[in-house]
Amino acid sequence: MKKIALNIENFSYDILIDYNLIDNIGSIIKEYFNASTVFIITDSNVVSFHGEKINSILDASNIKFNTYVLPAGESSKNIDTVNDIYNSLANSEITRHDIIIAFGGGVVGDIAGFVASTWMRGLRFIQVPTTVLACVDSSVGGKTGINISAGKNLVGSFYHPSLVLIDANMLKTLPDREFFSGVAEIVKHSLLFDSDMFKYLEENNKRLDIEKNICELLEKNCILKGRVVERDFKERHERMMLNFGHTVGHSVEKHLGYGHFLHGEAVSIGIMFALKLGVKLGITKNESLIEQVSSLLKSLNLPTDLPIGIDVLSAIKLDKKRMSDSINFIFIEKLGEPIIKKILLKNIIF
Amino acid sequence: MKKIALNIENFSYDILIDYNLIDNIGSIIKEYFNASTVFIITDSNVVSFHGEKINSILDASNIKFNTYVLPAGESSKNIDTVNDIYNSLANSEITRHDIIIAFGGGVVGDIAGFVASTWMRGLRFIQVPTTVLACVDSSVGGKTGINISAGKNLVGSFYHPSLVLIDANMLKTLPDREFFSGVAEIVKHSLLFDSDMFKYLEENNKRLDIEKNICELLEKNCILKGRVVERDFKERHERMMLNFGHTVGHSVEKHLGYGHFLHGEAVSIGIMFALKLGVKLGITKNESLIEQVSSLLKSLNLPTDLPIGIDVLSAIKLDKKRMSDSINFIFIEKLGEPIIKKILLKNIIF
Repeated sequence: MKKIALNIENFSYDILIDYNLIDNIGSIIKEYFNASTVFIITDSNVVSFHGEKINSILDASNIKFNTYVLPAGESSKNIDTVNDIYNSLANSEITRHDIIIAFGGGVVGDIAGFVASTWMRGLRFIQVPTTVLACVDSSVGGKTGINISAGKNLVGSFYHPSLVLIDANMLKTLPDREFFSGVAEIVKHSLLFDSDMFKYLEENNKRLDIEKNICELLEKNCILKGRVVERDFKERHERMMLNFGHTVGHSVEKHLGYGHFLHGEAVSIGIMFALKLGVKLGITKNESLIEQVSSLLKSLNLPTDLPIGIDVLSAIKLDKKRMSDSINFIFIEKLGEPIIKKILLKNIIF
Repeated sequence: MKKIALNIENFSYDILIDYNLIDNIGSIIKEYFNASTVFIITDSNVVSFHGEKINSILDASNIKFNTYVLPAGESSKNIDTVNDIYNSLANSEITRHDIIIAFGGGVVGDIAGFVASTWMRGLRFIQVPTTVLACVDSSVGGKTGINISAGKNLVGSFYHPSLVLIDANMLKTLPDREFFSGVAEIVKHSLLFDSDMFKYLEENNKRLDIEKNICELLEKNCILKGRVVERDFKERHERMMLNFGHTVGHSVEKHLGYGHFLHGEAVSIGIMFALKLGVKLGITKNESLIEQVSSLLKSLNLPTDLPIGIDVLSAIKLDKKRMSDSINFIFIEKLGEPIIKKILLKNIIF
């Protein structure tokens, strides 16, 4: 088992990574939290694959639990769902001594984290991510988020899980599209911080290749992101770099409706946009990087072109990083060397 | 001007208290925050008394502002209102660099604080409390709260204002009932921590008497509560004492519907319940305290009797301090000496 210990603004928690980790969730809950009541937030997909298993494991461990199942997909990530979960928590008489389990992908993690941060002003929650994306991105870093009609993740909180359990077996049941959407964030990390990992992906771009060393790859990405977050939790500078590809990625998701592209697919488009803009503005030194990255993303079945008719600018106006007429935009100077530039909105060229 | 500097878990902010402080809000915002865009959350009562004034002051200071006015009263403190404010923040293009002003009483402070803690994962907000209750209670301590149908403040967050501005002039326009509701929390502080203040109130129980030294009284109460919160922000032990009178107070509010009693009135009933229960259980040593406190509360026009037909126990089951079949209940051993006792729910006698 791999164990990553994070310490972020005086709050410590562990990320555990292994095959079949879920089999021990009962004893882990007792060992870590001395708790006997949990409330599981999950989605319809996860329940159909793993619902019976987790239920029987918790039963066998004498842990009392209730489960809230939301419809799979980004469209569930809204205030109405949150309100419905609050009522369910009240009906289940969950107090701040109990534990919430976020059992699912990024949507489940974002909602469950938000709910955990706001139910009775905060109770402990365990992330059990079931997608590659959730393992390497949303389960590390303490960001929770809810969409409103005006934009994605405009509502949210900074709040950490008390434990992250990554069971690599869970990822085997993912559809290819969902699997590679998560790999887009791994590509992002490699472009920002780790040129060796970029080369590794170029040489291992088939799902089976990636799955072969999945625990090591997840560990590396959790550490990469975790150390950035430890140094700059509140996103004053370094952490902003993790938004590489996301400014335009978010606007693509918003304009086509959440669900048209998966998050990692939109980020893939955003990565290519940021590389091309970087070359145009003379920030990205190596023009051939465009072709190299595009080629990798395509080999991972990820989209690279901005769909026609996207109004990137109006979406960027609601970006959390915007300051009146400018925005902190993340570029890559060269492979593994990111840079934050404050650019005028009018200089964002399409 | 009185200035109280608080430092709570590495977050520092000031409470400023004076007459006519609002006249300088423009320059204070610029001095403290270097900000030029604010979003005011207020209610219909406050707007009718003070709306034009704050607008003209902000205009004169060249501060751009939008205002969200909610219907006065506890019934506004719900998720629908919060969602409506989010949409208004989006329409006003408020980013995390801007400032929210909570201009009103406890309801406004609780909602605005919750919104500030969750809009774009948190932006700075200024409390401008306009009731006695908000000055001495909800503006100190970083608790925000929203009611859901199952109970009061079941949803919320721990989040501090970046500044509290108390303009004692604002309190002059309060109706008597609202004024004395706030004084109930001052009585609570005196019972818990300050027998001199209790005697002062016994000798000064008319509104005019209390208003004469209102700045000093507010300062004393903000310091009393502020120091407790500094020592125990997350309510592990000492801060729980501030819940004196609140366990039953909340259940009274819930059962009669928010708005039947004002918060301080419900707390007044809860204080008397806790004193009587304390005497019954042999925890409160001095039985005559019941008569002494009851007499003071009545002289302040505050109710002291539990209304008939209140199901205290079922409401307590959703109290945030409950642990399965017991609850941490706050008693007074004698004047100025509180004690926390874990008691079985079945020992709560009516």
